[in-house]
Amino acid sequence: MLFENIKIILASKSPRRQALIKGLEFPFEVVLFDVDESYDNSLIKHEIPVFLALKKAAFYPNKLNENEVLLTADTIVWINNHVLNKPENEQEAFEMLSEICGTTHEVFTGVCLKSNNKSISFYDRTEVTIKKLTVDEIWHYINKYKPLDKAGSYGIQDWFGYTAVEKINGCFYNVMGLPINKVYDAIKKF
Amino acid sequence: MLFENIKIILASKSPRRQALIKGLEFPFEVVLFDVDESYDNSLIKHEIPVFLALKKAAFYPNKLNENEVLLTADTIVWINNHVLNKPENEQEAFEMLSEICGTTHEVFTGVCLKSNNKSISFYDRTEVTIKKLTVDEIWHYINKYKPLDKAGSYGIQDWFGYTAVEKINGCFYNVMGLPINKVYDAIKKF
Repeated sequence: MLFENIKIILASKSPRRQALIKGLEFPFEVVLFDVDESYDNSLIKHEIPVFLALKKAAFYPNKLNENEVLLTADTIVWINNHVLNKPENEQEAFEMLSEICGTTHEVFTGVCLKSNNKSISFYDRTEVTIKKLTVDEIWHYINKYKPLDKAGSYGIQDWFGYTAVEKINGCFYNVMGLPINKVYDAIKKF
Repeated sequence: MLFENIKIILASKSPRRQALIKGLEFPFEVVLFDVDESYDNSLIKHEIPVFLALKKAAFYPNKLNENEVLLTADTIVWINNHVLNKPENEQEAFEMLSEICGTTHEVFTGVCLKSNNKSISFYDRTEVTIKKLTVDEIWHYINKYKPLDKAGSYGIQDWFGYTAVEKINGCFYNVMGLPINKVYDAIKKF
């Protein structure tokens, strides 16, 4: 609407992130490229997704045009002093969901914005409180909604978010993968 | 999935409520009927939407079948010791949005579930913290997104929610119009 001279280059295959950026009304293009997502295991909490967002930005393979702003991001779940990334398979998804049910965890998303001549990074943190689900309910969710592409094995915007998320404290969209109000402010000031 | 013997009769024209109930996977049907939504102005906070949910249920014009559960609901915004319902026109929407920007308000949704032989009601409360938007941004929102059908003149799931909602404390879907995890639990136990 108000910033039509900016074009966002969104380096994410997440359909949730694409929908959020589209909802801000910025012109944008999705550019995908492979990045090794390993990180030093001394990193904790927000340090992990901020490091990965910066790493993704560093490996952007093209040249940015004058009006382009590259946006990279990463989201993790942090619980019981360890990280939950995307599950490898359905059994691991079951273990992750069993761990988060009945308790509160933290979700961190790290974001990097980068143009030809500058770069900033930031993160947001949201607490998410999950109810107990039954074993049947957890397997129903895994089998029907196949959450293998999601950090912590759940989507706050699907059946799991509807039935099991009792409350959150912080930004909802941060849990979906992008702290979109902070992204909006950062792009306005960029 | 697990409760296919229940059919929800959803008495709401809100497309958000319809999408949420659909997302729970319960069979449901939307039945619309007119109810005078006046209430005694001594009522405050949650008392208003709980009263209106009960009133809507009382005016359901049909007979409920054995397996049917009527669901009625109402949502209000509470700020500075007064209620914000749906705005009458664009100027009132502007005044509501100007009032909620830069501060925190409460959203209350009251829900009534009713079958042939019993009835329960409950509510949920969510705190929503809104950033300052510019006058241009507020008018852009009103003109483009036409939020006249929404309590408090905003949708947490649209451009306003993306750009202006800094954080929430409580259930996100309660702000959209239905505390869907509480509804799920209540229907299971009904």
